[in-house]
Formats: sequence, structure tokens, C-alpha cells
Amino acid sequence: MTSEARYDIVAIGNAIVDVIAQADDAFLEEEQLVKGSMTLIDADRAKQLYRDMGAAREISGGSAANTLAGASTLGRQCALIAQVADDQLGEVFTHDIRATGIDFDVPTISDDPPTARCLILVTPDAQRTMNTFLGASQFLAPASVDADLIASGAILYLEGYLWDAEEPKAAMALAIDIAQENNRKVAFTLSDGFCVERHRDDFIGLIQGGKIDILFANEDEIKSLCETEDFDAAVAQTAKQVETLVVTRSEKGAIAVHKGKSCAVDAEPVEKVVDTTGAGDLFAAGFLSGYIEDRSPEDCLTMGAVAAAEVISHYGARPEADLQKLLAQRLG
Amino acid sequence: MTSEARYDIVAIGNAIVDVIAQADDAFLEEEQLVKGSMTLIDADRAKQLYRDMGAAREISGGSAANTLAGASTLGRQCALIAQVADDQLGEVFTHDIRATGIDFDVPTISDDPPTARCLILVTPDAQRTMNTFLGASQFLAPASVDADLIASGAILYLEGYLWDAEEPKAAMALAIDIAQENNRKVAFTLSDGFCVERHRDDFIGLIQGGKIDILFANEDEIKSLCETEDFDAAVAQTAKQVETLVVTRSEKGAIAVHKGKSCAVDAEPVEKVVDTTGAGDLFAAGFLSGYIEDRSPEDCLTMGAVAAAEVISHYGARPEADLQKLLAQRLG
Repeated sequence: MTSEARYDIVAIGNAIVDVIAQADDAFLEEEQLVKGSMTLIDADRAKQLYRDMGAAREISGGSAANTLAGASTLGRQCALIAQVADDQLGEVFTHDIRATGIDFDVPTISDDPPTARCLILVTPDAQRTMNTFLGASQFLAPASVDADLIASGAILYLEGYLWDAEEPKAAMALAIDIAQENNRKVAFTLSDGFCVERHRDDFIGLIQGGKIDILFANEDEIKSLCETEDFDAAVAQTAKQVETLVVTRSEKGAIAVHKGKSCAVDAEPVEKVVDTTGAGDLFAAGFLSGYIEDRSPEDCLTMGAVAAAEVISHYGARPEADLQKLLAQRLG
Repeated sequence: MTSEARYDIVAIGNAIVDVIAQADDAFLEEEQLVKGSMTLIDADRAKQLYRDMGAAREISGGSAANTLAGASTLGRQCALIAQVADDQLGEVFTHDIRATGIDFDVPTISDDPPTARCLILVTPDAQRTMNTFLGASQFLAPASVDADLIASGAILYLEGYLWDAEEPKAAMALAIDIAQENNRKVAFTLSDGFCVERHRDDFIGLIQGGKIDILFANEDEIKSLCETEDFDAAVAQTAKQVETLVVTRSEKGAIAVHKGKSCAVDAEPVEKVVDTTGAGDLFAAGFLSGYIEDRSPEDCLTMGAVAAAEVISHYGARPEADLQKLLAQRLG
């Protein structure tokens, strides 16, 4: 028997402050960065890259945290499990997540290593190239996984990015077990093509082991997961292994396969794409918000597309506009 | 005899990171804030207000620093004298100012008090209401005023805001003397109506004492300075006391009185005003850049208006677009 959920979504993710600067293609080449990807960097590289990049703005980020910010803006009750350090960027992250109405109570650890930051270079084509210094975020311990909290969330949402560090990986494995014991849904995002390459066997193990109910991916990620260039084949293969598969396709829209049945939506029109950071995160926010409301997969996709369209129309991966209003206009 | 200037503008100002959030009028009322003003707050109030305000973005600010950022973007050689603490916000401020091409070499002091921040609430009418915790910024010491640096700047630019703390006030008085000994121009902004109220006698002393060559003000500030509601009278009275007076009038444009001769420009059209933070700072940036280029007062005003129009079209008080390109389009 499943008790009533106090939270709609409980997420485990990286606690990151994004440091967002404009850059040109020449700068990416100089720094040997692969446009559109996420690269993990150490403290020295973070220092060098920050010194050499342009003036920036700081906006709280973190993939799952962005998703919760979107879902919370859409009226969902959310809680986050993530690790910040006892420093100013940790205060910034904590403030922003709480100000968005999300419960976040993991105690800080010391100020060394510092709170994670992601140096994001946005090129004139609005693509974002991310360079993440994980800092304190990689020390999210299994002990921070509050079993009652996990049990009280209708959906447990996890980001693949967190698989890069040992302690958070163990924390997520523990959380999945608790969620499943309590008949909660587990949602997972593959996060990034290179991330899938690094952890393909683990991710396949989770999927084939029946640990994931709702899987989010983009084209690169699902093709990397299945080690094929054939998008349709990758979708067909993966859709058999999860109850709900959601694949975003940038300007080509998105598809969902729910219990074997497929549907698709076009991308929402955007006047000017400024910064694609957070597009996938906000798509997940919209989709899951619809899912919680028991909407059709088509409606869930539309909600995802509307939320994603809002976030790519400005710098930063957290919504600025009233998503509920945008959705009311779109869905009626 | 005046030696050639290595810098176009050397400024002394507050080193502040802006913390910018959307807010509604009800929130301003609840917090008893006067819309459009700048209020100095202590650490406790900063903590409470930050806790209660919405999710924010952090963008480097500080009035004179914003002006230099604009002037640097316009190709001017600039240096800043300001005080940050040895903390993450200090790193952010330092990075952003240097990444903008501005020389900034004042050593950090300890991390207590921390680097200054300004909690900025932007209402739907795009007005900004600022709440400044000065922190380390109020400990900018006269010893940090490098006489050679001041002597090597064609213009010394000072912000009235800095008059609120004892040490920076002494630092500015010292800098003015050095600039005048070296036949440099001294430019000063009155900063804020309440700031003028707090320091009217001092500001009048500077002006009547022949210490200021170029004075920047808005309507409120110049009326407060002259203790009159009669704008024209305030302008006429003040213009007699400085070589160049520049008064910005928001959507009514701006006027300059240079050596007794007046001119005016309309405000530049802006598609959508988002956040008026930094409008005056960037107006000064454009005007001074034209001044350095020996342009006519009319052209200087237009340059100010174009720079101001850019900065109010987005969140944050530092320019995002290529101001040189905008000006080339506008002035030909």
C-alpha cells in the first residue's frame, strides 16, 4: 500500500552555482572545449578558466535543482537533497532553492572544498558549454538521504551527472531502494552524452534492473546509451525497458513512449534563443508536473516544451517568467 | 604642464556584487522600502531581507565600477580603486572588473566584514530598489589611493555613495587633491537623492570649492542639492559652479550645461525596459567616453543615452551588448 505523498518530487542532485559568460567560438577552441558538452574540471583548471573567461553573472543551477525550481514554479511540492559548503556560494544556492519554495535541509560541510560551480560559456548561437568544478557537491553522503523524505515523495528524481562521484552514487542507490520499497516512482535523467559514456554500464544496469520508471534523455544521450547512431532503434530498444521514456530533440521537439505507446510534440516557438542552459532540466520539470497531475503524455510533453522554451529565452537555467500563466495560455 | 594620461578614467567607488530579484509592490511595502531609492543596511537586516526576498542572480555592480565597465567596453583605458574582502563575492567582483579590461589592484582585506552586496528588488515597472550592505567596501583606506595612478588618469571619477563611510571619504578627498595638482579633471556623481540629503553640505562644499569639473546628477538629486522643487532653477544655479553639468531625466532624456551653454537629448527608445539599475552609471560611461574623445556635448549626451538604454533593457548594471557597435549605428 502506498501512503499519500507529502511531496510531489524529491530530487537528489548537484548543488551548483552557474557562472555564465558570453564567449566566442575562438575562445572555446583556444580552451579545447567541446561545444554543448559538460566537462568536469579540477580546482586549478577552474581557476585558470575563470581568469581567462569574460565577465559573468552567477545564477543558481544544478540539473535536478533546476528541474525542481521549474516544478515548484508550476505548483508542485518539492524537496532537494544536495550538498553545499559553508561559504557564500553555498548561501546563494541555499537561498535561491528555498526562495523558490523548495525544502532543502542538508547541513553544510566545511568551506573546503568550496561549493560547486559550473563555468558556462554561452556562444552567439546560444549553445552552452559547461565546465563543472564539483567541490563540495561530490561529498553528498548516503547519510544525507533521509528515508522518510524519500518515502514521502511521489517521484524520486535523480540526475546522471551525480554518478561521477562515489558518495552521491551510493546515496542515489540507497534512495532508489527506499523509493521502490515505498512504491514510489523513480525518474532519472541521463544528463549528458559524455556522462553516459563514462557510466554506460551502470546506467544500463539500473534500467535493465527495473530501477527506473521514467527516463529522460536527449538524442545524443540515448544513442550513446545504446551505442548506435540509429535514433529510432535506440528509442525502441530503451522504451521496452522503462514504463515512460521521454526524449528531447532540441528544435525538433520531443517524444514520449509511455507503456509502449508513442507520442510527440513540436518545439515551442521562441522569439530569440539566448542560452540553452537548462533546456532539458526544465523540460523534465514541465513533463513531471503534468505527470503528477495525471495528464496525458501529450500534455506532459507540451508542458515540458513550454517550460524549456521559457528557460532558453534568457540567461540562466531557472525560470524567470510565470510558468503557470504561460501554461494556462498554452493548454487553456 | 600636464603629462599624457595613461588612463582615460581612474575611478574610486564601492566594490559591490548586486543580488537582483524580482519583487512586487506589496513586498516593498511589507519591507517598508522606498521604491527607486538606495538604503544602507546592516548585516542583520541584510540577512533578514535576503531570506525573505525571491531567488536572485548575482551580477557585479557598484556605481563607479559600472561606469568604468561601460567606458571600458567603449574602448577607454580605465582603472578602479575599491575595496573587496578575501571571499567568494570579492573574487567575483575582481574577476568581472578585470575581465572587462579594467585595472584593479587594491589588495583584499580579511573576510570579515565580507565583500559588499546590494540586494536589489526589481518591480514589474522595471524600477529598482536597492539595499546596500557596505561590508568591506567602507574600509577603503586613503593608503589605497595610489598617487601615481590618480596622476595618470585624464579624469578622476568619484561616486557620492562612497561619502557614507569615513575612510573612503578621506581617500576621495586625497585623490581630488592629487588630481588637481596634476591638472586632471574631477568628475563626481551625486548618486542618490537620500545620499545628497545625508551629505548636502559636503557636496556643496566640494562644488563651491572648485573641486569638481564635471557633475552628474538626476532630477531628484539636483533638486535635493539645491533644496528646491524648481528643476530649472536648480540646474541654473549649479551650472554656474561647475564647468560641465550633466542631468539625466529618465524617459525625458538628459541635459548638459557646458561652460554655460545648454543642450539636451531625448531618451533613446528601448523595446522593453527590464531593470533600470545602472541607468545613471552607464549614462556617465557614455558621456565621459565622448568627453575623452573631445566630442560635442550633444554627442556626449547621445552616447550616454545609448549606453543607458542598453543597460536598462536587461537585468544587471553592466553592459551585455557591444556598446561600440550600438554607438556606431547611432552616431555613424
